[in-house]
Amino acid sequence: MITISAFKWVPPFAQGQVRDLRVRWTLEEAGLPYRVRLIDAEDQASAGYRALQPFGQVPIFEEDGLVLFESGSIVLHIGERSEMLLPTDGAARARAITWLFAALNTIEVAIQPLAEIDLFHAGEDWAKARRPDAEQPVKRRLAELAARLGDRGYLEDSFTAGDLMMTTVLRILRHTDLVEIEPKLHAYKEL
Amino acid sequence: MITISAFKWVPPFAQGQVRDLRVRWTLEEAGLPYRVRLIDAEDQASAGYRALQPFGQVPIFEEDGLVLFESGSIVLHIGERSEMLLPTDGAARARAITWLFAALNTIEVAIQPLAEIDLFHAGEDWAKARRPDAEQPVKRRLAELAARLGDRGYLEDSFTAGDLMMTTVLRILRHTDLVEIEPKLHAYKEL
Repeated sequence: MITISAFKWVPPFAQGQVRDLRVRWTLEEAGLPYRVRLIDAEDQASAGYRALQPFGQVPIFEEDGLVLFESGSIVLHIGERSEMLLPTDGAARARAITWLFAALNTIEVAIQPLAEIDLFHAGEDWAKARRPDAEQPVKRRLAELAARLGDRGYLEDSFTAGDLMMTTVLRILRHTDLVEIEPKLHAYKEL
Repeated sequence: MITISAFKWVPPFAQGQVRDLRVRWTLEEAGLPYRVRLIDAEDQASAGYRALQPFGQVPIFEEDGLVLFESGSIVLHIGERSEMLLPTDGAARARAITWLFAALNTIEVAIQPLAEIDLFHAGEDWAKARRPDAEQPVKRRLAELAARLGDRGYLEDSFTAGDLMMTTVLRILRHTDLVEIEPKLHAYKEL
């Protein structure tokens, strides 16, 4: 059976944001049963866990001796068992994968520095000086994403692993109104 | 034939760092011929280009009506035509893909904020205050990567798309000595 690692406990601001959520959602969509292996900071630092995950992060995916990490990689791996998440048509599949990468490597990379300022450094002088400019790339990327989405419900013709990843990435901004000020994204995120 | 988009011109600090390099290297390894479509800032902003790439970035990949973007997605798509880049064995393939994501979403996301400070904000007060702490996650991730790599030449048993992506990500630090102070990574990057 598939086993996923997750944290025993996370602080309130991180609840619902940990990367294992993406993988759990993917497993639910694919209809695959799984176990959860709960770990704490001591486990994360242990040689045993590092042998499976060199950076000590969650989640890892384990099944029949295969160990994977990186939520993007795991979502892709599981997605191959679901025609909905990754269409079997080659072009549709490649487009879904393109959106999965866009979620992580165009949208999340713009969002994450802003989220770190707000969640970890809000009181620091450098963060106060930096925040207005750090918000600009986020606004630009969200506007571009909203323009692409238009009035459609999904990034392509139907819901795929790309939408799954994109909507979890947009959740990182839940402490702001940046998604809500783009009505098309707000509707999309609520899907 | 495959067409890749790239910039007509980039400033010296960006030369050899633009994301199309990863895709060109992948195409060379896969032995696939391709054309390059050179674009400038005006093209990037045009409605025509945005219809293909909603965020105006390079590279895009075009072949027989299929349009993909995101260097990670394109490398994966091309990699499927090369047993070296993506092994046909399911587990080895999934591991290679895990490393491709780790390069982008664990290593590059740590490196990029530091590179942006150095390349775009070096003289600004917030950047001077932030830089020492911004360097810490980079050092930690590189040490973890070096520990995993050990004395091996590749992240898995042989060179894959995961190594291709990881070594291009490490190049982002070429203006620092952070890779060089990890001898195992220095040797790996030079492969």
